[in-house]
Amino acid sequence: MIAVSIFEKYKTFKVEDIQGYSPQIGHLVLMMSYARYTTLKAVEGLTVEQLDFLPHQNGNSIGALLLHMAAVEFGFQVEFFDNRKPNERETDEWGAAYELGKLGRGQIKGNPLKFYIKKLEDVRSRTLEEFKSKQDEWLYEEAPWGGVSANNYFIWFHTFEDELNHRGQIRILRNTLPSNL
Amino acid sequence: MIAVSIFEKYKTFKVEDIQGYSPQIGHLVLMMSYARYTTLKAVEGLTVEQLDFLPHQNGNSIGALLLHMAAVEFGFQVEFFDNRKPNERETDEWGAAYELGKLGRGQIKGNPLKFYIKKLEDVRSRTLEEFKSKQDEWLYEEAPWGGVSANNYFIWFHTFEDELNHRGQIRILRNTLPSNL
Repeated sequence: MIAVSIFEKYKTFKVEDIQGYSPQIGHLVLMMSYARYTTLKAVEGLTVEQLDFLPHQNGNSIGALLLHMAAVEFGFQVEFFDNRKPNERETDEWGAAYELGKLGRGQIKGNPLKFYIKKLEDVRSRTLEEFKSKQDEWLYEEAPWGGVSANNYFIWFHTFEDELNHRGQIRILRNTLPSNL
Repeated sequence: MIAVSIFEKYKTFKVEDIQGYSPQIGHLVLMMSYARYTTLKAVEGLTVEQLDFLPHQNGNSIGALLLHMAAVEFGFQVEFFDNRKPNERETDEWGAAYELGKLGRGQIKGNPLKFYIKKLEDVRSRTLEEFKSKQDEWLYEEAPWGGVSANNYFIWFHTFEDELNHRGQIRILRNTLPSNL
Protein backbone atom coordinates (compact mmCIF):
# COMPACT_ATOMS: atom_id res chain seq x y z
CA MET A 1 0.00 0.00 0.00
CA ILE A 2 1.41 3.32 -1.07
CA ALA A 3 0.66 5.11 2.22
CA VAL A 4 2.73 2.65 4.21
CA SER A 5 5.47 2.16 1.63
CA ILE A 6 6.19 5.84 1.30
CA PHE A 7 5.61 7.30 4.71
CA GLU A 8 6.30 4.46 7.10
CA LYS A 9 8.98 2.46 5.36
CA TYR A 10 11.13 5.30 4.07
CA LYS A 11 10.40 7.82 6.85
CA THR A 12 10.23 10.63 4.38
CA PHE A 13 7.57 13.30 4.37
CA LYS A 14 7.80 15.05 1.05
CA VAL A 15 5.36 16.17 -1.59
CA GLU A 16 7.34 15.50 -4.75
CA ASP A 17 7.39 13.59 -8.04
CA ILE A 18 6.86 9.83 -7.79
CA GLN A 19 7.50 7.08 -10.29
CA GLY A 20 4.58 6.02 -12.45
CA TYR A 21 2.65 9.29 -12.23
CA SER A 22 2.72 12.57 -14.07
CA PRO A 23 4.56 15.06 -11.76
CA GLN A 24 1.63 17.01 -10.30
CA ILE A 25 -0.59 13.92 -10.12
CA GLY A 26 2.25 12.41 -8.07
CA HIS A 27 2.02 15.34 -5.63
CA LEU A 28 -1.71 14.72 -5.29
CA VAL A 29 -1.09 11.00 -4.71
CA LEU A 30 1.38 11.81 -1.94
CA MET A 31 -1.04 14.16 -0.19
CA MET A 32 -3.83 11.57 -0.44
CA SER A 33 -1.46 8.89 0.81
CA TYR A 34 -0.30 10.92 3.80
CA ALA A 35 -3.93 11.57 4.72
CA ARG A 36 -4.66 7.84 4.51
CA TYR A 37 -1.54 6.97 6.51
CA THR A 38 -2.73 9.20 9.37
CA THR A 39 -6.28 7.81 9.14
CA LEU A 40 -5.00 4.27 9.52
CA LYS A 41 -2.79 5.36 12.44
CA ALA A 42 -5.84 6.93 14.11
CA VAL A 43 -7.81 3.65 14.09
CA GLU A 44 -5.03 1.15 14.79
CA GLY A 45 -6.13 -1.69 17.05
CA LEU A 46 -9.80 -0.66 17.44
CA THR A 47 -12.26 -3.47 18.26
CA VAL A 48 -15.69 -4.03 16.68
CA GLU A 49 -17.34 -2.52 19.78
CA GLN A 50 -15.13 0.56 19.62
CA LEU A 51 -15.75 0.96 15.88
CA ASP A 52 -19.51 0.73 16.49
CA PHE A 53 -19.68 3.08 19.49
CA LEU A 54 -22.03 6.04 19.08
CA PRO A 55 -20.96 9.13 21.05
CA HIS A 56 -24.57 10.36 21.19
CA GLN A 57 -27.87 9.46 19.55
CA ASN A 58 -27.28 11.68 16.51
CA GLY A 59 -23.57 10.94 16.17
CA ASN A 60 -21.59 8.74 13.78
CA SER A 61 -19.45 5.77 14.76
CA ILE A 62 -15.77 5.55 13.84
CA GLY A 63 -16.64 2.61 11.58
CA ALA A 64 -19.24 4.69 9.71
CA LEU A 65 -16.74 7.52 9.22
CA LEU A 66 -14.18 5.09 7.79
CA LEU A 67 -16.70 3.65 5.34
CA HIS A 68 -17.79 7.20 4.47
CA MET A 69 -14.24 7.96 3.31
CA ALA A 70 -14.36 5.01 0.93
CA ALA A 71 -17.90 5.94 -0.20
CA VAL A 72 -16.94 9.53 -1.10
CA GLU A 73 -14.02 8.29 -3.17
CA PHE A 74 -16.14 5.59 -4.83
CA GLY A 75 -18.81 8.18 -5.67
CA PHE A 76 -16.23 10.43 -7.32
CA GLN A 77 -14.87 7.49 -9.32
CA VAL A 78 -18.33 6.77 -10.73
CA GLU A 79 -19.03 10.44 -11.41
CA PHE A 80 -15.67 11.56 -12.78
CA PHE A 81 -14.00 8.43 -14.17
CA ASP A 82 -17.14 6.71 -15.47
CA ASN A 83 -19.21 9.86 -16.14
CA ARG A 84 -22.44 8.39 -14.84
CA LYS A 85 -24.65 8.25 -11.73
CA PRO A 86 -24.34 5.30 -9.31
CA ASN A 87 -26.66 2.40 -10.24
CA GLU A 88 -29.13 0.75 -7.86
CA ARG A 89 -26.70 -1.91 -6.66
CA GLU A 90 -24.03 0.70 -5.95
CA THR A 91 -26.50 2.94 -4.14
CA ASP A 92 -27.58 -0.02 -2.00
CA GLU A 93 -23.97 -0.81 -1.15
CA TRP A 94 -22.71 2.71 -0.50
CA GLY A 95 -25.72 4.88 0.25
CA ALA A 96 -25.63 4.56 4.04
CA ALA A 97 -21.90 5.28 4.21
CA TYR A 98 -22.27 8.27 1.92
CA GLU A 99 -25.21 9.76 3.82
CA LEU A 100 -24.10 8.87 7.37
CA GLY A 101 -26.64 9.96 10.01
CA LYS A 102 -29.65 7.72 10.65
CA LEU A 103 -29.03 5.50 7.64
CA GLY A 104 -25.40 4.97 8.67
CA ARG A 105 -26.29 4.22 12.29
CA GLY A 106 -28.81 1.61 11.13
CA GLN A 107 -26.67 -0.23 8.62
CA ILE A 108 -22.98 0.18 9.47
CA LYS A 109 -22.08 -1.98 12.47
CA GLY A 110 -20.63 -5.30 13.52
CA ASN A 111 -17.61 -5.09 11.18
CA PRO A 112 -14.00 -5.64 12.27
CA LEU A 113 -11.36 -3.04 11.43
CA LYS A 114 -10.01 -5.16 8.57
CA PHE A 115 -13.40 -4.88 6.81
CA TYR A 116 -13.10 -1.08 6.66
CA ILE A 117 -9.43 -1.14 5.71
CA LYS A 118 -10.14 -3.51 2.82
CA LYS A 119 -12.94 -1.25 1.53
CA LEU A 120 -10.65 1.78 1.72
CA GLU A 121 -7.82 -0.05 -0.06
CA ASP A 122 -10.02 -1.59 -2.76
CA VAL A 123 -11.46 1.80 -3.67
CA ARG A 124 -8.11 3.59 -3.49
CA SER A 125 -6.43 1.03 -5.73
CA ARG A 126 -8.76 1.97 -8.59
CA THR A 127 -8.08 5.69 -8.09
CA LEU A 128 -4.34 5.08 -8.24
CA GLU A 129 -4.68 2.96 -11.38
CA GLU A 130 -6.74 5.64 -13.11
CA PHE A 131 -4.27 8.34 -12.05
CA LYS A 132 -1.45 6.41 -13.74
CA SER A 133 -3.13 6.85 -17.11
CA LYS A 134 -3.64 10.64 -16.70
CA GLN A 135 -1.37 13.55 -17.59
CA ASP A 136 -1.06 16.71 -15.48
CA GLU A 137 -3.26 18.65 -17.91
CA TRP A 138 -6.20 16.47 -16.85
CA LEU A 139 -6.02 17.97 -13.34
CA TYR A 140 -7.07 21.35 -14.72
CA GLU A 141 -9.95 20.13 -16.87
CA GLU A 142 -13.43 21.24 -15.85
CA ALA A 143 -15.23 18.84 -13.47
CA PRO A 144 -18.53 20.38 -12.29
CA TRP A 145 -19.14 19.69 -8.60
CA GLY A 146 -22.72 19.94 -7.38
CA GLY A 147 -23.52 22.68 -9.89
CA VAL A 148 -20.37 24.65 -9.10
CA SER A 149 -17.47 25.17 -11.48
CA ALA A 150 -14.59 22.92 -10.37
CA ASN A 151 -11.71 20.94 -11.89
CA ASN A 152 -10.31 17.44 -11.45
CA TYR A 153 -7.59 18.69 -9.10
CA PHE A 154 -10.23 20.14 -6.80
CA ILE A 155 -12.31 16.92 -6.87
CA TRP A 156 -9.41 14.78 -5.66
CA PHE A 157 -8.22 17.46 -3.25
CA HIS A 158 -11.73 17.40 -1.83
CA THR A 159 -11.52 13.62 -1.42
CA PHE A 160 -8.57 13.90 0.93
CA GLU A 161 -9.70 17.12 2.61
CA ASP A 162 -12.95 15.38 3.57
CA GLU A 163 -10.96 12.41 4.87
CA LEU A 164 -8.79 14.73 7.00
CA ASN A 165 -11.92 16.37 8.42
CA HIS A 166 -13.23 12.95 9.51
CA ARG A 167 -9.82 11.81 10.73
CA GLY A 168 -9.96 14.74 13.16
CA GLN A 169 -13.38 13.58 14.30
CA ILE A 170 -12.14 10.00 14.69
CA ARG A 171 -9.33 11.23 16.95
CA ILE A 172 -11.88 12.95 19.22
CA LEU A 173 -14.15 9.89 19.18
CA ARG A 174 -11.26 7.58 20.03
CA ASN A 175 -10.17 9.82 22.92
CA THR A 176 -13.65 9.76 24.40
CA LEU A 177 -14.48 6.04 24.02
CA PRO A 178 -15.86 4.57 27.26
CA SER A 179 -13.09 2.80 29.18
CA ASN A 180 -15.11 -0.43 29.39
CA LEU A 181 -15.11 -0.93 25.61
CA MET B 1 -9.25 37.97 2.14
CA ILE B 2 -8.27 35.42 -0.49
CA ALA B 3 -10.52 32.65 0.85
CA VAL B 4 -13.62 34.75 0.43
CA SER B 5 -12.60 36.47 -2.78
CA ILE B 6 -11.92 33.24 -4.62
CA PHE B 7 -14.41 30.76 -3.26
CA GLU B 8 -17.34 32.86 -2.16
CA LYS B 9 -17.34 35.74 -4.60
CA TYR B 10 -16.59 33.86 -7.81
CA LYS B 11 -18.25 30.53 -6.86
CA THR B 12 -15.43 28.60 -8.44
CA PHE B 13 -13.78 25.60 -6.86
CA LYS B 14 -10.61 24.96 -8.77
CA VAL B 15 -7.03 24.20 -7.91
CA GLU B 16 -5.21 26.11 -10.63
CA ASP B 17 -2.68 28.86 -11.34
CA ILE B 18 -3.37 32.22 -9.69
CA GLN B 19 -1.96 35.65 -10.39
CA GLY B 20 1.00 36.72 -8.28
CA TYR B 21 2.24 33.23 -7.43
CA SER B 22 4.47 30.71 -9.13
CA PRO B 23 2.09 28.03 -10.61
CA GLN B 24 2.45 25.24 -8.07
CA ILE B 25 2.63 27.67 -5.15
CA GLY B 26 -0.68 29.03 -6.46
CA HIS B 27 -2.19 25.54 -6.20
CA LEU B 28 -1.02 25.31 -2.61
CA VAL B 29 -2.49 28.77 -1.86
CA LEU B 30 -5.85 27.68 -3.28
CA MET B 31 -5.92 24.50 -1.17
CA MET B 32 -4.98 26.48 1.95
CA SER B 33 -7.62 29.09 1.09
CA TYR B 34 -10.36 26.53 0.58
CA ALA B 35 -9.51 24.95 3.94
CA ARG B 36 -9.71 28.40 5.57
CA TYR B 37 -12.98 29.21 3.80
CA THR B 38 -14.57 26.07 5.26
CA THR B 39 -13.11 26.76 8.72
CA LEU B 40 -14.67 30.23 8.76
CA LYS B 41 -17.97 28.77 7.55
CA ALA B 42 -17.86 26.25 10.41
CA VAL B 43 -17.62 28.95 13.11
CA GLU B 44 -19.89 31.61 11.61
CA GLY B 45 -21.95 33.41 14.24
CA LEU B 46 -20.53 31.66 17.33
CA THR B 47 -20.72 33.58 20.62
CA VAL B 48 -17.98 33.93 23.24
CA GLU B 49 -19.72 31.31 25.40
CA GLN B 50 -19.95 28.88 22.49
CA LEU B 51 -16.31 29.46 21.55
CA ASP B 52 -15.29 28.80 25.17
CA PHE B 53 -17.43 25.69 25.72
CA LEU B 54 -15.50 22.59 26.80
CA PRO B 55 -17.12 19.31 25.69
CA HIS B 56 -15.48 17.45 28.59
CA GLN B 57 -12.79 18.15 31.16
CA ASN B 58 -9.93 17.08 28.88
CA GLY B 59 -11.35 18.57 25.69
CA ASN B 60 -10.49 21.68 23.70
CA SER B 61 -12.84 24.59 23.02
CA ILE B 62 -13.63 25.76 19.49
CA GLY B 63 -11.80 29.00 20.29
CA ALA B 64 -8.67 27.11 21.30
CA LEU B 65 -8.78 25.06 18.08
CA LEU B 66 -9.05 28.24 16.00
CA LEU B 67 -6.09 29.83 17.75
CA HIS B 68 -4.19 26.55 17.36
CA MET B 69 -4.53 26.82 13.58
CA ALA B 70 -2.92 30.26 13.68
CA ALA B 71 -0.24 29.05 16.11
CA VAL B 72 0.82 26.12 13.91
CA GLU B 73 1.17 28.44 10.92
CA PHE B 74 3.03 31.06 12.96
CA GLY B 75 5.41 28.37 14.27
CA PHE B 76 6.18 27.21 10.73
CA GLN B 77 6.82 30.81 9.64
CA VAL B 78 9.40 31.24 12.39
CA GLU B 79 11.00 27.87 11.70
CA PHE B 80 10.98 27.85 7.90
CA PHE B 81 10.92 31.51 6.82
CA ASP B 82 13.09 32.91 9.63
CA ASN B 83 15.14 29.76 10.29
CA ARG B 84 15.10 30.16 14.06
CA LYS B 85 13.26 28.97 17.18
CA PRO B 86 10.45 31.10 18.67
CA ASN B 87 11.73 33.64 21.21
CA GLU B 88 10.37 34.05 24.75
CA ARG B 89 7.76 36.65 23.81
CA GLU B 90 6.48 34.50 20.95
CA THR B 91 6.35 31.41 23.14
CA ASP B 92 4.37 33.38 25.75
CA GLU B 93 1.92 34.54 23.09
CA TRP B 94 1.48 31.28 21.18
CA GLY B 95 2.52 28.45 23.52
CA ALA B 96 -0.95 27.67 24.92
CA ALA B 97 -2.56 27.64 21.47
CA TYR B 98 0.20 25.45 20.09
CA GLU B 99 0.05 22.94 22.96
CA LEU B 100 -3.73 22.96 23.54
CA GLY B 101 -4.82 20.68 26.43
CA LYS B 102 -4.48 22.04 29.98
CA LEU B 103 -2.51 25.12 28.95
CA GLY B 104 -5.05 26.00 26.28
CA ARG B 105 -8.02 25.48 28.62
CA GLY B 106 -6.41 27.79 31.18
CA GLN B 107 -5.45 30.65 28.88
CA ILE B 108 -7.69 30.70 25.81
CA LYS B 109 -11.13 32.03 26.74
CA GLY B 110 -13.30 35.11 26.81
CA ASN B 111 -12.50 36.16 23.24
CA PRO B 112 -15.11 37.04 20.60
CA LEU B 113 -15.01 35.34 17.20
CA LYS B 114 -13.44 38.41 15.57
CA PHE B 115 -10.38 38.02 17.84
CA TYR B 116 -9.68 34.55 16.42
CA ILE B 117 -10.41 35.58 12.85
CA LYS B 118 -8.00 38.50 13.10
CA LYS B 119 -5.24 36.23 14.44
CA LEU B 120 -5.83 33.77 11.60
CA GLU B 121 -5.80 36.52 9.00
CA ASP B 122 -2.76 38.34 10.39
CA VAL B 123 -0.70 35.14 10.35
CA ARG B 124 -1.97 34.05 6.94
CA SER B 125 -1.18 37.42 5.37
CA ARG B 126 2.52 36.93 6.11
CA THR B 127 2.49 33.41 4.62
CA LEU B 128 0.90 34.73 1.42
CA GLU B 129 3.43 37.57 1.19
CA GLU B 130 6.34 35.16 1.61
CA PHE B 131 4.87 32.79 -0.98
CA LYS B 132 4.79 35.62 -3.53
CA SER B 133 8.57 35.85 -3.41
CA LYS B 134 9.14 32.09 -3.91
CA GLN B 135 9.50 30.05 -7.07
CA ASP B 136 8.10 26.53 -7.49
CA GLU B 137 11.57 25.00 -6.98
CA TRP B 138 11.46 26.18 -3.37
CA LEU B 139 8.56 23.80 -2.68
CA TYR B 140 10.85 20.83 -3.23
CA GLU B 141 13.76 22.05 -1.12
CA GLU B 142 14.55 20.06 2.02
CA ALA B 143 12.77 21.29 5.17
CA PRO B 144 13.41 18.89 8.08
CA TRP B 145 10.27 18.33 10.16
CA GLY B 146 10.79 17.08 13.70
CA GLY B 147 13.86 15.11 12.72
CA VAL B 148 12.18 13.61 9.65
CA SER B 149 13.16 14.36 6.05
CA ALA B 150 10.52 16.68 4.55
CA ASN B 151 10.27 19.51 2.03
CA ASN B 152 8.62 22.94 1.96
CA TYR B 153 5.62 21.59 0.06
CA PHE B 154 4.98 19.07 2.81
CA ILE B 155 5.34 21.72 5.55
CA TRP B 156 2.62 23.92 4.06
CA PHE B 157 0.48 20.94 3.11
CA HIS B 158 0.71 19.93 6.76
CA THR B 159 -0.45 23.39 7.82
CA PHE B 160 -3.74 23.02 5.99
CA GLU B 161 -4.14 19.29 6.66
CA ASP B 162 -3.91 20.03 10.40
CA GLU B 163 -6.48 22.82 9.96
CA LEU B 164 -8.86 20.43 8.17
CA ASN B 165 -8.46 17.90 10.97
CA HIS B 166 -9.49 20.53 13.51
CA ARG B 167 -12.26 21.90 11.29
CA GLY B 168 -13.79 18.41 11.46
CA GLN B 169 -13.55 18.53 15.23
CA ILE B 170 -15.10 22.01 15.32
CA ARG B 171 -18.07 20.73 13.30
CA ILE B 172 -18.66 17.97 15.88
CA LEU B 173 -18.24 20.43 18.77
CA ARG B 174 -20.66 22.89 17.20
CA ASN B 175 -23.26 20.16 16.64
CA THR B 176 -23.09 19.14 20.28
CA LEU B 177 -23.10 22.59 21.94
CA PRO B 178 -25.65 22.76 24.78
CA SER B 179 -28.86 24.38 23.56
CA ASN B 180 -28.79 26.97 26.37
CA LEU B 181 -25.54 28.55 25.12
